[in-house]
Amino acid sequence: MLIKCEEGINDENYARLIQEVEKHGLKVDKLSRLEGISIWLGVRGDCTKLSTQEFSKLPGVEDVQRVSSKFKLSGRQYHQVSTVVEVGGVKIGEGHPTVFMAGPCAVESEEQIMRIAKEVKDQGAVILRGGAWKPRTYPGHFEGLKEEGLVYLAKAKRETGLPIITEVMSSREVELIGRYTDIFQVGARNMQNYDLLDELGKASKPVLLKRGTDADIDVFLGAADRIIDGGNKNVLLCLRGITTFDRSQRYTADLYAIPDLKRKSHLPIIFDPSHAAGRRDYVPSLARMAIAGGVDGLIIETHYCPSEALCDGAQMILPKDLGELVQFARNIEKEVRRIK
Amino acid sequence: MLIKCEEGINDENYARLIQEVEKHGLKVDKLSRLEGISIWLGVRGDCTKLSTQEFSKLPGVEDVQRVSSKFKLSGRQYHQVSTVVEVGGVKIGEGHPTVFMAGPCAVESEEQIMRIAKEVKDQGAVILRGGAWKPRTYPGHFEGLKEEGLVYLAKAKRETGLPIITEVMSSREVELIGRYTDIFQVGARNMQNYDLLDELGKASKPVLLKRGTDADIDVFLGAADRIIDGGNKNVLLCLRGITTFDRSQRYTADLYAIPDLKRKSHLPIIFDPSHAAGRRDYVPSLARMAIAGGVDGLIIETHYCPSEALCDGAQMILPKDLGELVQFARNIEKEVRRIK
Amino acid sequence: MLIKCEEGINDENYARLIQEVEKHGLKVDKLSRLEGISIWLGVRGDCTKLSTQEFSKLPGVEDVQRVSSKFKLSGRQYHQVSTVVEVGGVKIGEGHPTVFMAGPCAVESEEQIMRIAKEVKDQGAVILRGGAWKPRTYPGHFEGLKEEGLVYLAKAKRETGLPIITEVMSSREVELIGRYTDIFQVGARNMQNYDLLDELGKASKPVLLKRGTDADIDVFLGAADRIIDGGNKNVLLCLRGITTFDRSQRYTADLYAIPDLKRKSHLPIIFDPSHAAGRRDYVPSLARMAIAGGVDGLIIETHYCPSEALCDGAQMILPKDLGELVQFARNIEKEVRRIK
Amino acid sequence: MLIKCEEGINDENYARLIQEVEKHGLKVDKLSRLEGISIWLGVRGDCTKLSTQEFSKLPGVEDVQRVSSKFKLSGRQYHQVSTVVEVGGVKIGEGHPTVFMAGPCAVESEEQIMRIAKEVKDQGAVILRGGAWKPRTYPGHFEGLKEEGLVYLAKAKRETGLPIITEVMSSREVELIGRYTDIFQVGARNMQNYDLLDELGKASKPVLLKRGTDADIDVFLGAADRIIDGGNKNVLLCLRGITTFDRSQRYTADLYAIPDLKRKSHLPIIFDPSHAAGRRDYVPSLARMAIAGGVDGLIIETHYCPSEALCDGAQMILPKDLGELVQFARNIEKEVRRIK
Repeated sequence: MLIKCEEGINDENYARLIQEVEKHGLKVDKLSRLEGISIWLGVRGDCTKLSTQEFSKLPGVEDVQRVSSKFKLSGRQYHQVSTVVEVGGVKIGEGHPTVFMAGPCAVESEEQIMRIAKEVKDQGAVILRGGAWKPRTYPGHFEGLKEEGLVYLAKAKRETGLPIITEVMSSREVELIGRYTDIFQVGARNMQNYDLLDELGKASKPVLLKRGTDADIDVFLGAADRIIDGGNKNVLLCLRGITTFDRSQRYTADLYAIPDLKRKSHLPIIFDPSHAAGRRDYVPSLARMAIAGGVDGLIIETHYCPSEALCDGAQMILPKDLGELVQFARNIEKEVRRIK
Repeated sequence: MLIKCEEGINDENYARLIQEVEKHGLKVDKLSRLEGISIWLGVRGDCTKLSTQEFSKLPGVEDVQRVSSKFKLSGRQYHQVSTVVEVGGVKIGEGHPTVFMAGPCAVESEEQIMRIAKEVKDQGAVILRGGAWKPRTYPGHFEGLKEEGLVYLAKAKRETGLPIITEVMSSREVELIGRYTDIFQVGARNMQNYDLLDELGKASKPVLLKRGTDADIDVFLGAADRIIDGGNKNVLLCLRGITTFDRSQRYTADLYAIPDLKRKSHLPIIFDPSHAAGRRDYVPSLARMAIAGGVDGLIIETHYCPSEALCDGAQMILPKDLGELVQFARNIEKEVRRIK
Repeated sequence: MLIKCEEGINDENYARLIQEVEKHGLKVDKLSRLEGISIWLGVRGDCTKLSTQEFSKLPGVEDVQRVSSKFKLSGRQYHQVSTVVEVGGVKIGEGHPTVFMAGPCAVESEEQIMRIAKEVKDQGAVILRGGAWKPRTYPGHFEGLKEEGLVYLAKAKRETGLPIITEVMSSREVELIGRYTDIFQVGARNMQNYDLLDELGKASKPVLLKRGTDADIDVFLGAADRIIDGGNKNVLLCLRGITTFDRSQRYTADLYAIPDLKRKSHLPIIFDPSHAAGRRDYVPSLARMAIAGGVDGLIIETHYCPSEALCDGAQMILPKDLGELVQFARNIEKEVRRIK
Repeated sequence: MLIKCEEGINDENYARLIQEVEKHGLKVDKLSRLEGISIWLGVRGDCTKLSTQEFSKLPGVEDVQRVSSKFKLSGRQYHQVSTVVEVGGVKIGEGHPTVFMAGPCAVESEEQIMRIAKEVKDQGAVILRGGAWKPRTYPGHFEGLKEEGLVYLAKAKRETGLPIITEVMSSREVELIGRYTDIFQVGARNMQNYDLLDELGKASKPVLLKRGTDADIDVFLGAADRIIDGGNKNVLLCLRGITTFDRSQRYTADLYAIPDLKRKSHLPIIFDPSHAAGRRDYVPSLARMAIAGGVDGLIIETHYCPSEALCDGAQMILPKDLGELVQFARNIEKEVRRIK
């Protein structure tokens, strides 16, 4: 529910209004919206049984509106101004250049991540990715270096200055990983791991939330709402391919959802071409399309020698291919923005 | 990898064989297979780099075979004899009557669960279901009574004698829920929550694992492998509908997968018609088809007054409808088995 | 639009009512509905711009209702009484035993079809299937014996007394095939071949219409409407599997749609387990589920030696397996009907 | 099967080779391939039972290879050089500027099509689209002006000089429509209407073949093969959205398939953003992504006043929006090509 206060509402009426909302066990946010200087309040929680009239007749209230979508906090109706997430000096969101996050699927050794960090930085990446905990579909495979991997990532960050993004798979590891990473990555398998989302809602670092492979956009934004509802507003929405009848690529790249997310949500949009394609030679093509679609960032698996990698070797590109994509983005960004 | 020992292998050779396997960081299981009196060993872990020859030349070894499927421990190749899971005197699996698990979506009060427990027992249910922790797609909705709900379930169990099944959503709650429940239920959203699966692998109670809504059968069995690999062999495979283009029902009931699971896995198969259909009037029809398909059990949301329920009201059936399904199962079971 | 006439409407008012409807370029049907002795009229054509008031004020009119679904003529709202299609003495529809249509994928020789016809008849089939025109995904493969195949089918019919069903793929062949067949079969690929549907709407023989592999139920019934709208009311709805992410079977058997079609349409429902499964060993299981779901008939590819067949060998069952299915249907039909 | 002749094969050996192939009931094509000056022959038909050895030992034969994909004639393996289709002076294919085909969903009147033709030409379209026969999911709706529509299209062509593309839905209309149109359009519903494809294989004008909404790429190319096998090599492959679980847009835009088609086929690729999106505001975004992906052309529903249209109003864009897309294409084409 959205409440628009009258221009110049006095402190007494404002306090009473807040009190009325909280009386129903609901939370209230002061929103940044576009329409001039009026104060808008966003009411969080189950408002289905409230009457809007009860609130609209309070002194100082100009208008009360229901939010029609199932998702609320991540939606444009609740929050019109596009969110810009800042991490280590890098700004991700509308009005800023496309951000490239790059690095290996998994951190495998200190040498490997140091070398990749330097090479992707040289090619234009501004955030370093690398998995320390790796989800594996079948037991008995390499599951990452765990904390050792985090230590190497931290060292790569110190040397290159690149902020880090790494995956967290359990509520029990949020505290530990949070001590090292700059952005938490939540994989598609955990998009509805509510215990994890709740823990991340309490964290102070941004969260890159990947779309579940069969999640409707509403459900995806519902998961983002869960994190924001916990208090963490810095959520990045990441498209990474969906499951469809066409199994010729690893997943079906959901580029079609870019305009949909832009219209419905104020959060930055990231695209992951690596997991969508599942094969190196299609990654640049998918990435270029996402750039032309106006995404705010890309996260791309990159390795100097993919064939040596312990996982996802088939889909990692070379640093020089990354560089070409960065160049492509720089060259067409003006065109993409001119039309938007 | 499967190793067939020579008939009458001596203790020394057997011990040496086990030692050889474990030297590679692999685990070994003694398997129950159908072919007479030979001892078969199942080797767990990443065997892709091992040579079968290395083992086949050891004294006492008759044959070494690779398991061709990606899943292993839950597969028929690894374990030919159908697994029967026993819980509180109820046997679930091949050769036993179709088991009915019934109860409300969520435990809402002591009175509610006590009344439903008695009514579903009267109609032929032998296991009581009821959610104490409820996953909700959007924040701000009823998420279950938590431990209070477990207490009520335990009381209903004492009064009716019905074993309990309830959902666990986080590794952090396995210990607590395990003190009350007889079967852990893992929802579709958590099918690849590996931290949870690993914790359940260490638990002593059976796990009903629901298929993820876009999981291939191989991937589903990979998740079951994860639990078995942890040491818990009592896994029930639950089909509950998949996501397809047809959104006219809540999910697309995956009845087609019943013969596939029967062929590929030795684990018991449960069908959940409630979440598949999402509407009460289709539940009996889907349930009857699953019974004719030869499932080992059904889990059905049942309530004396669905319209009063705090969640899933639209898909819960009445106890008398449950009774008709139990009767249908008893009447056709002979036919289903005759042909099998 | 549905018009309910007052009880005992006189001839003059009735004639005027019909005239009014036809004045708008619409067609009108006298419907058989359940509510006592009132006359109901169904109005066909685009009624979106008509006002119901215009008709409800006419003398002799008791009520005017809009049909809310996009499909009309095939819907229960328009036509409540279940349709029974009769062909060569065989009745297909509610209240009649499950009908078995069986035979080879393709007619390959006179000997082959004669032998199969006799064997499937012996096992309980009452209609003979066999393709004379075969749709093939890639050019350069066997496309059927064409008219020669029809001649053999006709001979098999004379010898066994079994009515015939065979596929028609083009409007240009409706006349020729109609001279031989008792039921026209329209494949999934042609579900929206409107030129063909229109031609079949003018034909005098029943049409078995297969669901397109990604057609929503509404769209499927829209295609049935097209045939009925042309004047041919004898349409059989055939479920044969849909395309989903799970490609482990040829198609995903859409058993879930059986209760949906029963509720929405008055037309008989047929299930084709052969094309759904794509492999012989799953066919009986899928067929048994469909029988328990209450389908009015099954169409099953059957061959005395599937491995010799020129197409679809992998999914054809043996005549004796067909016999077991017929027996299963006879044995549980009483149970299926008791509960319905 | 591909046969590579020895350099300088003499006429006698060449003739004998052709004879050998044709003896097996197979057809043979002289291929344009990249590897220097050798002659390559493509053998069409079912080669599965032929032995490659039989041919490789013939005098003048250097090598015999099997085509491993199920599709052949439309594949790069069979025909390496990218096909460029020319129609009315417009070249469609690799190395040529992105071609814009635009116009209304349906031709509704002479005035309408004349005005739209002029406006889209002014904005940079080089081919005029407009439906004279319209497929409709439910009976009783506007199905196009039929031949009258063709007459108006022809007039618009005379006035503007724009070649025409219009849909053909039945083999029976190929001759009539072929008298007016420059390109035949085959809709997704008819992608496997073999009678129609066969008739178009005999036609002399290019065919734009839309991908069926659940067709795998192999199956799509199989349909293209059917047309080429009939003798018509000028096939344009059109992506127009597929059916997936996500129903928030009319279809799921299959942009992901662009790199796949480019790799597998030599035929030009067209993208249709209008039917994919189903809503006007997403069309430019999808179109821009397709351009960045390197498609050879776009077909976009365009109307000066979409709200007046008899069909597809919601998805038609305005001529000025088309102009912006043309400009975007011109501005980034250099970048797209530089990297390719």
